[in-house]
Amino acid sequence: MNNAIFYHAGCPVCVSAEQALLAALDQQRLNLKVVHLGEEPTEIPAAELAGVKSVPALLLNGQVLHINFGASLDDLKGAQ
Amino acid sequence: MNNAIFYHAGCPVCVSAEQALLAALDQQRLNLKVVHLGEEPTEIPAAELAGVKSVPALLLNGQVLHINFGASLDDLKGAQ
Repeated sequence: MNNAIFYHAGCPVCVSAEQALLAALDQQRLNLKVVHLGEEPTEIPAAELAGVKSVPALLLNGQVLHINFGASLDDLKGAQ
Repeated sequence: MNNAIFYHAGCPVCVSAEQALLAALDQQRLNLKVVHLGEEPTEIPAAELAGVKSVPALLLNGQVLHINFGASLDDLKGAQ
């Protein structure tokens, strides 16, 4: 089973694109977790350690795929 | 059936990440086409029309997901 974490911050601009990606992933073969960093800021350090620089991002078996050009994690920290 | 086109340019840095994404997609429910714009530059205008600004990118039912920070299409044109 592959592990995947989809990090986002609820950005309305990207929601439809994010939904399209989640729908396209093979969730029967993926152990997929979705983390909203705006609502779960305690997850930000783990995201940073994994190499996440911006959201939305998909962490796939430890590899970070940054998607589009979104909000930086520093911006999310400032919003708290 | 959803339509998806994965655009890339053979960038060695991103190859493993791209393979991870392709492996995670549900290809039984996706009509997936992979286009190497370095080898198929005639596909660049269609990619541009679809909104592709950089590669790698995944076009999902007309929505462009730009992945990581790759080569711009203008750079690919200059490389021909």
